[in-house]
Amino acid sequence: MLNYFNILAWPDRSEPLEIQYIFELLGTYFFAISGALALKGKEPDWFAATFTGFLTAIGGGTLRDVLLNSYPLVWIGDTAFLYAILLGVLTTFILHKVVFRLKKTLMLFDSLGIAFFTVLGVEKAQDLGVQPEVAAIMGMFTGVMGGVIRDTLTNEMPVIFRKEIYATACLAGAGCYLLLEPYVLRDWNLLISILLVVLIRIIAVLYGLTLPRLK
Amino acid sequence: MLNYFNILAWPDRSEPLEIQYIFELLGTYFFAISGALALKGKEPDWFAATFTGFLTAIGGGTLRDVLLNSYPLVWIGDTAFLYAILLGVLTTFILHKVVFRLKKTLMLFDSLGIAFFTVLGVEKAQDLGVQPEVAAIMGMFTGVMGGVIRDTLTNEMPVIFRKEIYATACLAGAGCYLLLEPYVLRDWNLLISILLVVLIRIIAVLYGLTLPRLK
Amino acid sequence: MLNYFNILAWPDRSEPLEIQYIFELLGTYFFAISGALALKGKEPDWFAATFTGFLTAIGGGTLRDVLLNSYPLVWIGDTAFLYAILLGVLTTFILHKVVFRLKKTLMLFDSLGIAFFTVLGVEKAQDLGVQPEVAAIMGMFTGVMGGVIRDTLTNEMPVIFRKEIYATACLAGAGCYLLLEPYVLRDWNLLISILLVVLIRIIAVLYGLTLPRLK
Repeated sequence: MLNYFNILAWPDRSEPLEIQYIFELLGTYFFAISGALALKGKEPDWFAATFTGFLTAIGGGTLRDVLLNSYPLVWIGDTAFLYAILLGVLTTFILHKVVFRLKKTLMLFDSLGIAFFTVLGVEKAQDLGVQPEVAAIMGMFTGVMGGVIRDTLTNEMPVIFRKEIYATACLAGAGCYLLLEPYVLRDWNLLISILLVVLIRIIAVLYGLTLPRLK
Repeated sequence: MLNYFNILAWPDRSEPLEIQYIFELLGTYFFAISGALALKGKEPDWFAATFTGFLTAIGGGTLRDVLLNSYPLVWIGDTAFLYAILLGVLTTFILHKVVFRLKKTLMLFDSLGIAFFTVLGVEKAQDLGVQPEVAAIMGMFTGVMGGVIRDTLTNEMPVIFRKEIYATACLAGAGCYLLLEPYVLRDWNLLISILLVVLIRIIAVLYGLTLPRLK
Repeated sequence: MLNYFNILAWPDRSEPLEIQYIFELLGTYFFAISGALALKGKEPDWFAATFTGFLTAIGGGTLRDVLLNSYPLVWIGDTAFLYAILLGVLTTFILHKVVFRLKKTLMLFDSLGIAFFTVLGVEKAQDLGVQPEVAAIMGMFTGVMGGVIRDTLTNEMPVIFRKEIYATACLAGAGCYLLLEPYVLRDWNLLISILLVVLIRIIAVLYGLTLPRLK
């Protein structure tokens, strides 16, 4: 078997732990919990819960990187992400009776997860040199496509089609980040854009806001 | 974050508008309309309709290019395709009561769409140096997989499993193009193969033709 | 249209037929049969049966290679795999009444298929230089994701969520291969790991063993 793989492309994670890296791991952890809980009503076995947790956590970023030809994929180059997922699944197994009752807490974590992943996804796409429109789509994909893949595999109507304003919140956050970029320092821009996504989500859920529908 | 992306690979669209390029944009436009209408019975919101329009329009070509390692993806390298999709979705929003009544017109546009995409897909696969069998599969994928992805996400049985002769028409067109290639000028070959796909589809729908079934 | 494809990457299959190559073709053949039979209750037409056979046979390996950026995909670089699939589909068309009665034989073939694909997938991932954890996941993907894609497209709950111990058997075989690798000759290791997957599957089916469930 030939080795087509460019071994030089593996990332060098020798730099000290950055705040962004910690956020990525935290987002992965929360997405794994939300994914492991997704099959709840269907009495999943341990493997099924782990597998949906895994797909939910890596799906969005994996799709973004395959579409942008950015290799190695984050979780393949750095196994810390796999252990963050295992930890999330384990948390779910041990605490699932508690976790499931905390529906509002979960919603908040999910909102934080999609917010971080969206903005980090926009940044990565921009680093790879794409147009702003594409960067916004890639940010939204990073935030929501893990959940879409999870829902499709488990025969549910995907989250982006049934929930209150969801992917649209990601697009708003991505747009905000891109608009402010020339004028605001990166760290402030990250903070503002992430808060915008979370705020839109919370307000949409609290007031049951939805987009206009086609009749 | 490292920049793994080969920036030199972005396509140079400085050549004058070719007829093929216009056809690609038109096909994208019509697929976006057909995708945006796909959720009709389910009262989709604006985002959901836009998203399914987007996936239907880019799904087939994206799958082909990922399988063939051909980057950047067409709609990432050239945002004109994104605007063709937006225009298609907008058309649907404004005219959806009219458009939905024109079921036969839509069927014709869908047939034109899969016909163009199939033949252009075969050509691109051949340019990338694959065997004819693979080029035919890639042509068929380009034509039908956008619809398959749309149907899978929206929990429908994919179009290729339920309709009258559909993907088979694409395979016939792809085979025709490959067979005639050594003997016929490219432009005539394009025309003949596209017409063949459209004709097979129209005849299949008019007479309710289906392939034999396994009992 | 530009040629982004690195033509030098096509594999050179001039070496004599190795036992591994024959096993890959056999696995592909059996997966194509299992895929072509998957739509049984839904009276598929010839195309639909061929298409699901094709996706089942190539899905797992294709996903692995796209995730690992290993091009060209096996079935694109070597059309012998396409003919193995066609042969499997043809076998199903001719013998489907016989084949369908041999449910236990089919289960055995499916187990052999996932066992071979898992272990060969682990090997390929290792050749490409990934961490052992990732190699195990890639082996499991190679074994089961063709069936998952087939089930998702046909609106079934994926095999890995409903069957007796299934993907877990693949993970066990992958882990076994990786653990024994420093101590056992490759051919013996292949044999032991493949047998382990098949044995776990047979015992699980015979005794109806399942993993513990989350309530």
